Amino acid sequence: MKALVNGRENTNPGVFDRGLAYGDGLFETMAVLEGRCPFWDRHLRRLRRGCEALRLPLPEPALLRDEAQQLIGTESRAVLKLILTRGEGGRGYRHPESVQVTRILMRLPWPDYPPQNGQQGVQVRFCETRLARQPALAGLKHLNRLEQVLARNEWQDPAIAEGLMLDEQENVIEGTMSNLFMVHNDTLYTPDLSACGVAGIMRERILELAAAEGIRSVIEPIAKSRLLAAEEIFLSNSLIGLWPVIRLADRVFAAGSVSRALQARINRDYGLS
Amino acid sequence: MKALVNGRENTNPGVFDRGLAYGDGLFETMAVLEGRCPFWDRHLRRLRRGCEALRLPLPEPALLRDEAQQLIGTESRAVLKLILTRGEGGRGYRHPESVQVTRILMRLPWPDYPPQNGQQGVQVRFCETRLARQPALAGLKHLNRLEQVLARNEWQDPAIAEGLMLDEQENVIEGTMSNLFMVHNDTLYTPDLSACGVAGIMRERILELAAAEGIRSVIEPIAKSRLLAAEEIFLSNSLIGLWPVIRLADRVFAAGSVSRALQARINRDYGLS
Repeated sequence: MKALVNGRENTNPGVFDRGLAYGDGLFETMAVLEGRCPFWDRHLRRLRRGCEALRLPLPEPALLRDEAQQLIGTESRAVLKLILTRGEGGRGYRHPESVQVTRILMRLPWPDYPPQNGQQGVQVRFCETRLARQPALAGLKHLNRLEQVLARNEWQDPAIAEGLMLDEQENVIEGTMSNLFMVHNDTLYTPDLSACGVAGIMRERILELAAAEGIRSVIEPIAKSRLLAAEEIFLSNSLIGLWPVIRLADRVFAAGSVSRALQARINRDYGLS
Repeated sequence: MKALVNGRENTNPGVFDRGLAYGDGLFETMAVLEGRCPFWDRHLRRLRRGCEALRLPLPEPALLRDEAQQLIGTESRAVLKLILTRGEGGRGYRHPESVQVTRILMRLPWPDYPPQNGQQGVQVRFCETRLARQPALAGLKHLNRLEQVLARNEWQDPAIAEGLMLDEQENVIEGTMSNLFMVHNDTLYTPDLSACGVAGIMRERILELAAAEGIRSVIEPIAKSRLLAAEEIFLSNSLIGLWPVIRLADRVFAAGSVSRALQARINRDYGLS
């Protein structure tokens, strides 16, 4: 693990940083493969959208890129995490008059997920913790993640790879760390994220790949009962790529042809095929 | 401004701290008057409740007290802010197997609110940003405060001292940094906080003082329309004490007898009367 805070090594963000005080900032978690981030541009586009929504100045992308490269070096497999905060200052919740964004880049080890998660698929559960409806923050990868912390700590069983979160209307929204897809009658469905959830960059990529493969896709609210009646279910994020779901609650699923076709395309993006 | 991080001066929380990464922690903001925190015990009780809800180990209260005293010294008027986070570690949102809580104490200057806010009352507005319904986190003073950051930055006019936040059902819940009370037919009302909002320690104290003064009080949902029909409205928090509201949207209020009676009692708590 190694980090750069505003370009400097061996330093820490200040104790008065608004990232710590309020979670006033955004983050991106990126796969590093053979010394590069295959989805850098996509992460930066989402970061820019988040900065616009939170009125946070985006640092020079070339500077972020240089610092990222400095951290990554020639790592064959790692995780790059980028955090932007609104820095220090301001009276209480009010923004500082002149914002000095804190930018943090971290290199982390690749998580030790079992390799069979992608090949054989995973078991998942439903979480009790619900996602609150908050359209003003929905879709953003912001630093307020207590709902995910609560949800992820509902289970300890290592055989359960992920937990699915619902909103208060019994719609499924996403996993604690992943987006959710289902296939029904040859159509790909993924939950609408206009009221809660994180719009993952792998979710975006999968929707593009589906179009390229001639698979019809629909973004809309998905009730829990509908999910359980799906033919295929899978999860996605930047690090896991695509994991088929083979068991959800007491229902068993097969890793079907749509999941496999999309997974093969993602592995190609990552140079893994 | 001065801070102690795990008892040490001139240090900062680590870049991998979960307080920064996820807002995985709690805080308290306390008034310091003549070298003491008049509501220390009350803040610690709330902190303990928050720790139980988030399954965060509470550090030894005597240690927190010693460090607080070390920072406060003989300050006649300051703010003491206490932050607890779940420290570093854990895989993603999952708690570390052995949690080393990060404890941060900060001494901050007393905010420069106009002194007439308490005496003459304040103008307030309604915010557009809504509070999301999240019973699992409601009442807690946790570090996920982006809703308040969004709401507080909706206005710049210095004549507006506070903004009131509603839930999605048009109930008023609280101010961006304060709790809300209204008086109607000699009864004191304050919003129910079981789905959102922060249960302020001054709110708790005011409810006790009302009982001591023989004022009936009711905690229940309060619709915006009902608030606008109130006879008195006031705001509270640990630093402002009690501010009567004299203008809300286009409605004018008087700082009435219930507000004044409670305000006098709070000032006595603070040795200010």
